[in-house]
Amino acid sequence: MQQAIQLAEKGRARTSPNPFVGAIIVKNGTIIGRGYTQPAGKDHAEVQAIKNAGKKAKDSVMYVTLEPCCYYGRTPPCTEAIIHSKIKKVIIGKKDPNPKVNGQGIQILKDAGIEVKLANNLIAEKIAEQNEIYFTYITRKRPFVIIKNALSLDGKIATEYGDSKWISNEKSRTLVHKLRNQVDAIITGVNTVNNDNPQFTVRLVSKIKDPIRIILDAKMNINPNSYVIKSANNIRTILVTGFQQDQTKKDFLQQNNVEVWKVKTKNNKIDLRDLLSKLYENEISSVMVEAGSLLVTEFFRERLYDKVYFFIASKIFGSRSNRYSLVHSLDIETVEQAICFKKTSWRKIDCDMLFIGYPY
Amino acid sequence: MQQAIQLAEKGRARTSPNPFVGAIIVKNGTIIGRGYTQPAGKDHAEVQAIKNAGKKAKDSVMYVTLEPCCYYGRTPPCTEAIIHSKIKKVIIGKKDPNPKVNGQGIQILKDAGIEVKLANNLIAEKIAEQNEIYFTYITRKRPFVIIKNALSLDGKIATEYGDSKWISNEKSRTLVHKLRNQVDAIITGVNTVNNDNPQFTVRLVSKIKDPIRIILDAKMNINPNSYVIKSANNIRTILVTGFQQDQTKKDFLQQNNVEVWKVKTKNNKIDLRDLLSKLYENEISSVMVEAGSLLVTEFFRERLYDKVYFFIASKIFGSRSNRYSLVHSLDIETVEQAICFKKTSWRKIDCDMLFIGYPY
Repeated sequence: MQQAIQLAEKGRARTSPNPFVGAIIVKNGTIIGRGYTQPAGKDHAEVQAIKNAGKKAKDSVMYVTLEPCCYYGRTPPCTEAIIHSKIKKVIIGKKDPNPKVNGQGIQILKDAGIEVKLANNLIAEKIAEQNEIYFTYITRKRPFVIIKNALSLDGKIATEYGDSKWISNEKSRTLVHKLRNQVDAIITGVNTVNNDNPQFTVRLVSKIKDPIRIILDAKMNINPNSYVIKSANNIRTILVTGFQQDQTKKDFLQQNNVEVWKVKTKNNKIDLRDLLSKLYENEISSVMVEAGSLLVTEFFRERLYDKVYFFIASKIFGSRSNRYSLVHSLDIETVEQAICFKKTSWRKIDCDMLFIGYPY
Repeated sequence: MQQAIQLAEKGRARTSPNPFVGAIIVKNGTIIGRGYTQPAGKDHAEVQAIKNAGKKAKDSVMYVTLEPCCYYGRTPPCTEAIIHSKIKKVIIGKKDPNPKVNGQGIQILKDAGIEVKLANNLIAEKIAEQNEIYFTYITRKRPFVIIKNALSLDGKIATEYGDSKWISNEKSRTLVHKLRNQVDAIITGVNTVNNDNPQFTVRLVSKIKDPIRIILDAKMNINPNSYVIKSANNIRTILVTGFQQDQTKKDFLQQNNVEVWKVKTKNNKIDLRDLLSKLYENEISSVMVEAGSLLVTEFFRERLYDKVYFFIASKIFGSRSNRYSLVHSLDIETVEQAICFKKTSWRKIDCDMLFIGYPY
């Protein structure tokens, strides 16, 4: 199973909104087939492994990290391929929480006379971690939300004059590009677009794809000359508004290939829950929030985040105002009420420190 | 020399304002004497090592981390003891920057016919680091200033309602007590005393001594019932004012054994340079600033610090105002102008992270 887990990694960030799965077929102590999930619409791990094993698959044992699918999606069900291949036993790392599968894949295999075993909890946990994006996407019906920020030691995302280039070091920034490579979309606010004119593309590492850009712009204040608009022909770009849309601006954006979405508002701001539901419906399974204080604060306030990456530089900015703090008021009274994290890790990146945590 | 450096450690925090030094006497490949600096007024390392070696010291070699003193202070000069012992060679880790020594100790030994050698730069650096307090105290004519704070990930020293108990974990707090054990004094502001009523004593580790408490209270606003006043009979406590002193308050404080110092002011605040000069004159060689934003900001603004300890807890507080930020405005415009640190290190303390740095 360890090998299947490792094999699955080859599909990381390439299978969205599907999970990335690894499958290994063993016969008489020898591996006769290997497979991992191909990009959506192409072979799943099981099918690839069966193709790889060929006719030898008969009477063999398959190790697969996730329960085989049992419905017609973009591809035929894997259960069919397994039954057809005459594999005699399937060891499954973890049940698929997708309601279209969720034990039914196992039942179908059993009904066909195949022996099915589930791996132990430790392995199941490891697989849930490996596919944290997919598991969140399926069970919460919203994308996996990463909040990423670069901070000074005193918790500022810019100097009091707004300068933020660059807080973190080059290695840290390279890692950010690697993260962009692994999420379906970036969420940002219109102020970040108008002030910093960012590209949000993958540049410093070898690219799988550029993430979709999702710009929250409740009142359609985006600068028409911003890079994200100018590059919308090549990179999917969604502008999210919350109010009555200005038709001239909307026309301009659409002519420039920018999708314009309207979502609900809440306290005069974009309703993040409504936005995330729409992203779920659009099969966007992961987003990274690369934004300023106001938007980041909203994600924290609504507790809509699954993982944080804070790159902490060993610098002090100081500030007269709270404008460039990581977060604004969350109305936290006592230390006990603070936003805490679990499964935290700290990773030294040259002189920066990367904090990774999951919501407690 | 490595052994002498290690031996010196036994004197750490016990010799102020003197350096802590280690000395080893070797003859025919055997160590025949060991010594380290005793508390001020008692034997220095060299004298202790010579006493330890006894008559065998004749024709031996001494390894000593710092240049032997050559003047009558609280004790007679070590150079005299060395000459008297008939040691034939002295290897010195580093020259003593104290103008009363600074090469003169070496010269006196040489004039007496003793061979003197200086260790290489690497060793000298290590010794300067070991005795960073002494070297700063002597060369800058002010105490070594440590700024210590516990922070949330977003750089806050309290929630927006002022709660700060406890930001850092127990292990971190134990380390703070260890640090208190190693400095001559704690500097704090009257607001910290009035709001938190701290003790500033050494409690969680075995105590060498309680540090002197130095309370900056320009306008004599201290709460007469505060712990620091009530315990001033047992622990030296200095209240520093900057303006015309209220004689009634002053009498009350002095009756309670609190020393009252008056120093210059600058922009309506205590002039930190004047304060540190006074501390130097009083042979206070190290201080730790345990204070709120305003005072910490002043130390940063005046660049009066030699080392920082930031305990960063993996929590987010958020805040409506800047009141509980680590620092207030330092008028930093660009990232390049940020306060930076060198020789930085990060140390994991359970789920907290300790950042240690020296001013760049």
